[in-house]
Amino acid sequence: MSEHDEYLIRPDPHDPRLTERVSGVDQTGAAIETLVTVERALTIYLNAQEIVTAMTIGDHPDYLAIGYLLNQNMLRPDDVVTEVEYHEDLAVVVVRTERATNYEQKLKKKVQTSGCAQGTVFGDLMEALEGVSLPTAEFRTSWLYALTHKINTTPSLYLEAGAIHGCVLAVKDRPLVYMEDVGRHNAVDKIAGWMFRNKVPAGDKIFYTTGRLTSEMVIKTVRMGIPVLVSRSGFTAWGVELARKANLTLIGRARGKRFVALAGLDRIVFDQDLAYVEDEGARHRRKAAVHDD
Amino acid sequence: MSEHDEYLIRPDPHDPRLTERVSGVDQTGAAIETLVTVERALTIYLNAQEIVTAMTIGDHPDYLAIGYLLNQNMLRPDDVVTEVEYHEDLAVVVVRTERATNYEQKLKKKVQTSGCAQGTVFGDLMEALEGVSLPTAEFRTSWLYALTHKINTTPSLYLEAGAIHGCVLAVKDRPLVYMEDVGRHNAVDKIAGWMFRNKVPAGDKIFYTTGRLTSEMVIKTVRMGIPVLVSRSGFTAWGVELARKANLTLIGRARGKRFVALAGLDRIVFDQDLAYVEDEGARHRRKAAVHDD
Repeated sequence: MSEHDEYLIRPDPHDPRLTERVSGVDQTGAAIETLVTVERALTIYLNAQEIVTAMTIGDHPDYLAIGYLLNQNMLRPDDVVTEVEYHEDLAVVVVRTERATNYEQKLKKKVQTSGCAQGTVFGDLMEALEGVSLPTAEFRTSWLYALTHKINTTPSLYLEAGAIHGCVLAVKDRPLVYMEDVGRHNAVDKIAGWMFRNKVPAGDKIFYTTGRLTSEMVIKTVRMGIPVLVSRSGFTAWGVELARKANLTLIGRARGKRFVALAGLDRIVFDQDLAYVEDEGARHRRKAAVHDD
Repeated sequence: MSEHDEYLIRPDPHDPRLTERVSGVDQTGAAIETLVTVERALTIYLNAQEIVTAMTIGDHPDYLAIGYLLNQNMLRPDDVVTEVEYHEDLAVVVVRTERATNYEQKLKKKVQTSGCAQGTVFGDLMEALEGVSLPTAEFRTSWLYALTHKINTTPSLYLEAGAIHGCVLAVKDRPLVYMEDVGRHNAVDKIAGWMFRNKVPAGDKIFYTTGRLTSEMVIKTVRMGIPVLVSRSGFTAWGVELARKANLTLIGRARGKRFVALAGLDRIVFDQDLAYVEDEGARHRRKAAVHDD
């Protein structure tokens, strides 16, 4: 089977709802047409309560809503979701739970986190790190190189239109779910929502993101129970500190042959002969520059 | 004078408070030391009211606080700021105004925008676009190439440690203020705060960002009254639509020789002979990839 058949979910760059063709001019003044990523509002309800309006590309509203509520501590891992209603015309998604919920108080205090903040209640997120212990999994560098090669060559909105973030959930060298969104946090939440809906164990997984390794990204990965976080981008000091506290394996600046690991080093098995790994080509370098915000 | 002396404010990559040296391993398993960007909490008060806690690198807390409040519509252009107190030990900044303020209601409803959302009250921001008319300024492509060259060669945290966003306020081909932050929205807000504090007219300015051209970025630029927005990164469809509505000149994917303009085209004067512009070198291409989130 083709390596892209390994995915359970992967981007559909040809979904006409996700991009728009617009006209403009280039540096010579010549008229051009180009694809740009859509960005639309989606209002998330938890039972009767309006929680937030997210700006998203709009695919997988159900996973986005559930993942957002999980990552906000508004949905508990043991909560039973009885129904998820998506009203495309209203741009509304409603998550219904067995447990009665009320987050009036919580919604009053918002804390903004860096790198695509979503008004996360930061105190709660910090608490969520207490007492979390990630499994002593193994992470082979041969998996890393196989994964990043597959991800970089998977057809995506990013390759079509740029200006979008991607996150991939993987096991060993196999990518399972590749989500994209204009908000990086949305891509993360869609994967969290998919894991919750499908009761997917986290302990053997690897989380790949195109975004930076900030405190918010580290906290979310730990909350998901995933022991390894990989990014082609860089680190923030607090991200590194939290990853060390939680014993999360934190690998950044992963491009071509190169990477830097700053936490959870004991999980890493250096089994890849680097003589057989290509340095990142100019094409990916150029493309990578589109991965902004 | 050196071209970097043109700046009124530019990054101080050697400020020890802004980066941390951490140890880890590289792809060969060899021990390495690397610089990472700091990320710390700063709680912003407007008079007696706690508004938000931002994750920031922590430079220019006064400009960040004022700019944030302006961009949240909590501070009006005609408000008189009587005092800005920064308590470094408490990580608190308090903005005091002549006018009594109370945003209890506003703080209850938060809307999350893509690309570094800050819980902006989106409805208000949309209203803010109504009736705004940007000046019929001129934008020469020769300025664009001179500016991007200067910005790319200015010593910065981005070149030192990566994983950070930058915004530059410029006039013609002269960069005036270059702000960086782990949250792109913070870099924007610091420039807005600087403009407010120094009563800087906006109509002849150019705003450059490393981040994507999202609805949020367009709205903020229009609210600041700046007629030209430039990014090395890509567009979202809503960003383009809003820029056209507000007649903002929107230029993206500006790298080396290349750029794409999708709104406000009539301000652009194509005066640069492209034979004299270098294509972006591999070094900048690679570096650009660090501009994530």
